[in-house]
Amino acid sequence: MVRFVNVHNLARWAADTGIENILRDLVAAMEHDFRRWPVFDKTPRVASHSEHGVIELMPTSDGETYGFKFVNGHPINSTRGLQTVTAFGALADVDTGYPLMLSEMTLLTALRTAATSAMAAKVLAPAHASVMGMIGSGAQSEFQALAFRANLGIETLRVFDTDPAAMTKFERNATALGFDVTICRSAEEAITGAHIVTTCTADKRNATVLTDEMVRSTEASRGPRRGLHINAIGGDCPGKTELDIELVKRASTFVEFPEQSFIEGEIQFLPHDWPITELWQVLTGERPGRQSDDELTVFDSVGFAIEDFCALRFLNESITGTDYYDEIDLVAEPADPKNLFGELLGSTLATDTSDVAGAAIDQLRQLVPLAGS
Amino acid sequence: MVRFVNVHNLARWAADTGIENILRDLVAAMEHDFRRWPVFDKTPRVASHSEHGVIELMPTSDGETYGFKFVNGHPINSTRGLQTVTAFGALADVDTGYPLMLSEMTLLTALRTAATSAMAAKVLAPAHASVMGMIGSGAQSEFQALAFRANLGIETLRVFDTDPAAMTKFERNATALGFDVTICRSAEEAITGAHIVTTCTADKRNATVLTDEMVRSTEASRGPRRGLHINAIGGDCPGKTELDIELVKRASTFVEFPEQSFIEGEIQFLPHDWPITELWQVLTGERPGRQSDDELTVFDSVGFAIEDFCALRFLNESITGTDYYDEIDLVAEPADPKNLFGELLGSTLATDTSDVAGAAIDQLRQLVPLAGS
Repeated sequence: MVRFVNVHNLARWAADTGIENILRDLVAAMEHDFRRWPVFDKTPRVASHSEHGVIELMPTSDGETYGFKFVNGHPINSTRGLQTVTAFGALADVDTGYPLMLSEMTLLTALRTAATSAMAAKVLAPAHASVMGMIGSGAQSEFQALAFRANLGIETLRVFDTDPAAMTKFERNATALGFDVTICRSAEEAITGAHIVTTCTADKRNATVLTDEMVRSTEASRGPRRGLHINAIGGDCPGKTELDIELVKRASTFVEFPEQSFIEGEIQFLPHDWPITELWQVLTGERPGRQSDDELTVFDSVGFAIEDFCALRFLNESITGTDYYDEIDLVAEPADPKNLFGELLGSTLATDTSDVAGAAIDQLRQLVPLAGS
Repeated sequence: MVRFVNVHNLARWAADTGIENILRDLVAAMEHDFRRWPVFDKTPRVASHSEHGVIELMPTSDGETYGFKFVNGHPINSTRGLQTVTAFGALADVDTGYPLMLSEMTLLTALRTAATSAMAAKVLAPAHASVMGMIGSGAQSEFQALAFRANLGIETLRVFDTDPAAMTKFERNATALGFDVTICRSAEEAITGAHIVTTCTADKRNATVLTDEMVRSTEASRGPRRGLHINAIGGDCPGKTELDIELVKRASTFVEFPEQSFIEGEIQFLPHDWPITELWQVLTGERPGRQSDDELTVFDSVGFAIEDFCALRFLNESITGTDYYDEIDLVAEPADPKNLFGELLGSTLATDTSDVAGAAIDQLRQLVPLAGS
């Protein structure tokens, strides 16, 4: 039997465990996996693009466990009362190839995306960062806020979204969660005084939610300790970006998996030899993260399979011995694997095999000294 | 809610509907999809190889519906009481990106593999073929037999397997299904007098279950109408082949998707400009299938995503209005998609938001004429 975590059970697990506890422990688990980055099988996700969106498969393996996620990205869905992103995924045992766990991953992706952002910010954000500007207050925004509070102590949020209802929703949720929230009239206002800027919008186009000029003016207002970290989440497929490319060019830019980021990230406009740093190398200590108080850093996040793998493994370990999952009959398990037909479809075999046929079979069996294996 | 077809329900559906009925209708559905081959998104499967096997994802889309299969191939499993191949898969709506159906696919893959073989044989086997030689009598063998009876009227089977228990199992099942079965002492004996030869073994190595010499001797014994069709199923990944390459070189060879077949099929030893025919072009009439009574044809089958897509769609249509599926809670569906957090994890929001905070929020709301969308 295969474990199955449905939406209801995942939400129950998350609420009972505590979102911030999960986001803290998930960052630790992800740091562990990023530090052993070279052991993973890595491939850019396999994307199927259509007029209104994309459907992707994101597989990886650490040699012991295999994981993959199915995920869609349909910005138009937000105008239809549907979710922009939905996902589910599975873990399998590499040695046998058998699936182990199937899980909803819409919520789990929200958690892993926020944990990845916080993991990056821990090594990239200015020391003593306390204010985060947020451009976009959609489905991912509360998770980002909680991940930054749990891992960096951020309590003060300045938010802007072109959709007033989304801002009201965020303000209500984040205030109830105990954040100090300021609703802003523009992206520029939202980043004023911020040490960290998170961009998380869903437009499927090359947008510029943050211009170089806006960021320069924020930096200038901060004086000598002008360092800023931009956590860029929303640009994650070809033709879908959020930042002024001039901003990326002058920043120290960190990515997950360059082969994928040069296709999908903010850096899709830059030549493939553009100097970027792979985040995992910062975590192993091979490369520096933030180097000074006045540095501009960008985490050009597109989401990578290892993050989903990590979230699935974290979930699978966390639910062991609990009732947060069901067991489903996903894999046929005949006692004699070569008799898949007979064991599963035995009822379709004629039951009245005549004695004549039976005798003929017995005779054949004696006549034929079967070849050895 | 998403439809879920578990192993029990798929077996029940198959047994109730009748395997041969399914195999006949599935061939028709597959012919339809092969004739519209150019509309599909095609990509070689994404394989993760390990010491003992491989785990693969096989996605495709026809622009309206997206499908993918997770499948493993672990030849070593047969020595562990486990299945060599297990699979599951899903369909999704391209327009919204939402999953529609999740299904076990171990049994379904067995059905689609057999249907694909029969579809190819309908255009490649010699006219009036009545005898099939089968090398390998594992989990796929009964499905092959039934597909060839349902679609080509084959009733006479000559079988050889290096595992005597697998032959006994096949003999028992196939005899109960009404076939005339001859157990043979060698591959050579099994192909004697056969018009069609199906090779379906599971060794993960470059084996030669059929030599050119064996086939030449069978052809010679048949006289002028010496035509033979080889349905080569088992060679399906790099380093796993079944045929003497000389045999493939002198045959007219047909494949599913050349980009994948040159990596995984019998043709993996041939240069990529080797003349092969894509099966779909035979179905549309663009290219000939069998051209003469004395031709040697090979269907170098590795299994392609469009076949799985077709099987999933066929299943999804067939179970509509029945009780062969459950509905599962795989996709989070908040009424307000941007409030994923609040709607799914609302219980984690502090419920005692103080009046002070509430008043502050109301005040803010009045102060900020929110920017238009």
